[in-house]
Amino acid sequence: MNDWKKIKQKLINFLELEVKNTGHEKVVLGLSGGLDSAVVAVLCKEVFKDSLLCILLPSQFSSKASVDDAIELCEKFDIKYEIVSIEPMLISYINNMQNDNLRIGNFSARLRMSVLYDISARERSIVVGTSNKSELLLGYGTIYGDLACAINPIGNIYKSDLFDFAKFLGVTESIVNKAPSADFYEGQSDESDLGYTYSRIDEFLKAFVDNNSSKDELLKLGFEEEMIEKIIKRVKINSFKRELPKIAQI
Amino acid sequence: MNDWKKIKQKLINFLELEVKNTGHEKVVLGLSGGLDSAVVAVLCKEVFKDSLLCILLPSQFSSKASVDDAIELCEKFDIKYEIVSIEPMLISYINNMQNDNLRIGNFSARLRMSVLYDISARERSIVVGTSNKSELLLGYGTIYGDLACAINPIGNIYKSDLFDFAKFLGVTESIVNKAPSADFYEGQSDESDLGYTYSRIDEFLKAFVDNNSSKDELLKLGFEEEMIEKIIKRVKINSFKRELPKIAQI
Repeated sequence: MNDWKKIKQKLINFLELEVKNTGHEKVVLGLSGGLDSAVVAVLCKEVFKDSLLCILLPSQFSSKASVDDAIELCEKFDIKYEIVSIEPMLISYINNMQNDNLRIGNFSARLRMSVLYDISARERSIVVGTSNKSELLLGYGTIYGDLACAINPIGNIYKSDLFDFAKFLGVTESIVNKAPSADFYEGQSDESDLGYTYSRIDEFLKAFVDNNSSKDELLKLGFEEEMIEKIIKRVKINSFKRELPKIAQI
Repeated sequence: MNDWKKIKQKLINFLELEVKNTGHEKVVLGLSGGLDSAVVAVLCKEVFKDSLLCILLPSQFSSKASVDDAIELCEKFDIKYEIVSIEPMLISYINNMQNDNLRIGNFSARLRMSVLYDISARERSIVVGTSNKSELLLGYGTIYGDLACAINPIGNIYKSDLFDFAKFLGVTESIVNKAPSADFYEGQSDESDLGYTYSRIDEFLKAFVDNNSSKDELLKLGFEEEMIEKIIKRVKINSFKRELPKIAQI
């Protein structure tokens, strides 16, 4: 069992210090209607009060509930928000993407980043990230899209643990109770995309990454061969999403 | 005098190795009509031949000559290219940006990145970056915009040296002879924005960064107090553009 009270305080300290270090006093974040950004919003509200602005960035492909759920959270916690639809920009380019949901989703994530960074310039704010540890390790996110931020308070918390943390923080039920989704299209499911539940994936990642377990040990812990190979491959192939571009030495 | 023949071979080896390491065989890059991307295009053509695709990404604010100059380069070196205007996307959002050239420019750089990454997905290619060492150190570029890439062959070459390298590589005269510009709007000049010529800035950066000269030494080298403070501040304040997001420990 995690000590959420202690972790909450640590993250509050992190947010205060890191934002101050950049010389800013205000923050913005993209609120999707999902669990991760809700947790970050509640943490930021505690620290920054009215200097937090949440941006809701729906497209024509977002789940209808996403905006409603995000607004419900903002109302409960008295968080300022703005809604900026990316639909007009997406329409201007979508014919290039051959109905490929993955391309459309990644492109949308980058449009959202572009709007969020523009608003952060308008507000002289910094952008707070909302990617969790499971997503970061699996590379289940868009580089230069939702993975883009200045600071990230939840990047060392696994997705399956974030549910507990969200409940502890009082995140609204509509958000805590829904199935995790990148929301590239209505009905998308992280766990279907990834092939395993977060609970199972996170057990695996805790053994493989945090405890550095070997393949033999992972087998002994009860993970099947196919899962071991699939997840390890995924973590390795997506390591570029956690690294800076490679620059040639001369 | 730099040994451009040797450097060229080093960069060719870098491109071959790093692209191979990602499991890809093809590359894309954004060709602006400026010096930096022209140099990278010529290097990539040498390595990847018809597996190089250059993307020209003009907006309604680009200099009229930019596309012409980029096409002239592609014709001279027989480089494949596509033109994708970001104008329609930009029009859908521009009313939010209050005629602020800096916001419009940064937003445009991020739209270009979004298109470039989408085309890289379509082509199963990786994105080659085109930022030079002066820009990277000064933070004179858009984070998650033109600074975004997988690999960058010229990030350790100063802008003032790139002119020589470009001539050595046979980059077309229209590109070598024009004043450096981020091309956020017609007539913009890097050197006006930065307040000093690249030649002077690069002398400074070579002393301050490469030789680790102290402020006293910089004064002795003939750099005026105001320039020393201005450039050092710029390098420090923009260090976040050369770093990964900060993630909280728990």
